[in-house]
Amino acid sequence: MKKFVDDPKQFVPQMLEGLALANPDTLRYVPEYNLIHRADGPSDERVSIVQGSGSGHEPAHVMTVGPGMLTAACPGDVFAAPPVEYVIETVKLMRSAKGVLLIVNNYTGDRMAFEMAEELAAAEGIEVRTVFVDDDVAVKDSLYTVGRRGVAGNFFVMKAVGAAAESGASLDELVRIAEKVNSVTRTMGLALTACTPPAKGSPLFELGDDEVELGVGIHGEPGRERVKLGSATEMVGWLLEPVAGDLPVASGDRVALMINGLGGTPVSELYLAYGIAHKGLTGKGVTVDRSYVGEYCTSLDMAGISLTIVRLDEEIDTLLSAPAEIAIRVF
Amino acid sequence: MKKFVDDPKQFVPQMLEGLALANPDTLRYVPEYNLIHRADGPSDERVSIVQGSGSGHEPAHVMTVGPGMLTAACPGDVFAAPPVEYVIETVKLMRSAKGVLLIVNNYTGDRMAFEMAEELAAAEGIEVRTVFVDDDVAVKDSLYTVGRRGVAGNFFVMKAVGAAAESGASLDELVRIAEKVNSVTRTMGLALTACTPPAKGSPLFELGDDEVELGVGIHGEPGRERVKLGSATEMVGWLLEPVAGDLPVASGDRVALMINGLGGTPVSELYLAYGIAHKGLTGKGVTVDRSYVGEYCTSLDMAGISLTIVRLDEEIDTLLSAPAEIAIRVF
Repeated sequence: MKKFVDDPKQFVPQMLEGLALANPDTLRYVPEYNLIHRADGPSDERVSIVQGSGSGHEPAHVMTVGPGMLTAACPGDVFAAPPVEYVIETVKLMRSAKGVLLIVNNYTGDRMAFEMAEELAAAEGIEVRTVFVDDDVAVKDSLYTVGRRGVAGNFFVMKAVGAAAESGASLDELVRIAEKVNSVTRTMGLALTACTPPAKGSPLFELGDDEVELGVGIHGEPGRERVKLGSATEMVGWLLEPVAGDLPVASGDRVALMINGLGGTPVSELYLAYGIAHKGLTGKGVTVDRSYVGEYCTSLDMAGISLTIVRLDEEIDTLLSAPAEIAIRVF
Repeated sequence: MKKFVDDPKQFVPQMLEGLALANPDTLRYVPEYNLIHRADGPSDERVSIVQGSGSGHEPAHVMTVGPGMLTAACPGDVFAAPPVEYVIETVKLMRSAKGVLLIVNNYTGDRMAFEMAEELAAAEGIEVRTVFVDDDVAVKDSLYTVGRRGVAGNFFVMKAVGAAAESGASLDELVRIAEKVNSVTRTMGLALTACTPPAKGSPLFELGDDEVELGVGIHGEPGRERVKLGSATEMVGWLLEPVAGDLPVASGDRVALMINGLGGTPVSELYLAYGIAHKGLTGKGVTVDRSYVGEYCTSLDMAGISLTIVRLDEEIDTLLSAPAEIAIRVF
């Protein structure tokens, strides 16, 4: 394993400590719960927004905390759901008179932790609602999921509800917005290489020198099929067609297009892939109004990309245009 | 080779096309010269700032074009200096009554192209000055260099002169600022893996499973020595000590600290390394006032990092604090 790691058990705490040291004016770190929250904390003037999930997907979600995005993130260890205790203590610390919104990518472990935390918080008189993100069109069920998985498209849900919360929207309104954005967002990914979790020390799965995993999950779960490596144009097409077809998009639609790097793919290749996808959509008569190229939701050091399309209307476009301030610029 | 590539000869043009398509409001692309320039073009109210270098170091430099940073970048092919023609045509197109500043990382090929372009531009009556960046402390001379190499520290030179140019500073003033920032900036890098240029199709050098190249260049040039893989704390120390010692920094100094990813290392590891370096400097009585964690100057898909320290004074701190707008947020 070639990584910057001391003790693998300390990988997440050391990363969070570095994040806090690099952002002393904007972030606070509570080591007991792997909790990163915005420095100005919760406010009774706005709903608090919390996202958990396992670590290893950075910048999601600890690096997307800040005004206009998440109020806090409380990740688990690498690829492991946060313990219920982390979530419930985070909810208590981020308590707001306007309520707390939990955003959860649809994985069984994460759902269990957040649903239990929601119950416990309700018992303490905290108003909490939970929304699930399930944008991945690759597979119906998966290793760790019943139903579709939540992947990089969760960025758009976070961004939209973050903007609405900042302008004082109610908890009910945020739930409506989150579910609406999720309903018009679709993603599919492709791995060129496996990723190596620090505690395992070796690649999570085997992939031949000429093979790619089409529809891979962000924890290395199998996708639709293992196929031979293609050209950039071919591989982008393998993602674009199922995503555009599932949404669906039609001539005249306006969309946001994201090429998300899975961790080991350089930004030069991401822009190259973006250009191919952009022209593919334009060729269908679709207008790309918003562009997102970079790392949003990774899988450690996995080489590969995911492609996300969001069908825009005026409300979503306005929410995505709102300012936000986070450690990593992803928009 | 597992990459998003169609024809390797089209790698750079396709990347630049994708960059332009993703940033239609802020960037313009002139395919004849691999030229990316800010959409509002040059202005007689401010010096134009141009940087070239080979491609493969993205976001440097095509993705750091915008208000407060570069006016334009005209890269060569992957790891190849831009042809003189690209530079001279870029200088002509970016011509300003206040002059044109060329920033060049110190590699022999890049120096030749830019020095020749400077002469040709002068012959056409364009006022041009060139500054060289040589922040890499790893080696004195190198495969492609006489003297020190210019690496990720060039970001600080670009940022400082970009801010000064935006406020109307003269060409002489920009040269003074660039040379001053370069004189207080030091960097060293470490490779965990080699990188694979698209046209070569295989890794640029061989590195054993338990080896790292300490002091590696951003084109895969050999560094100080090949050593056994260490822990994160050890490896960060191997960079921090030579950089801090060369500058030097002393107790009471205020600095900017950058952990730059070389392309294949995930941001989780970058923040982990940042925390170790930050605490190392604090332990020496040095105050870290500015933090930079992410990819600034890469080497395609190479796994590894470089560490940069800039000794701050009030002028440099103010220039680095100024706003800027580029495709990739790196500050």
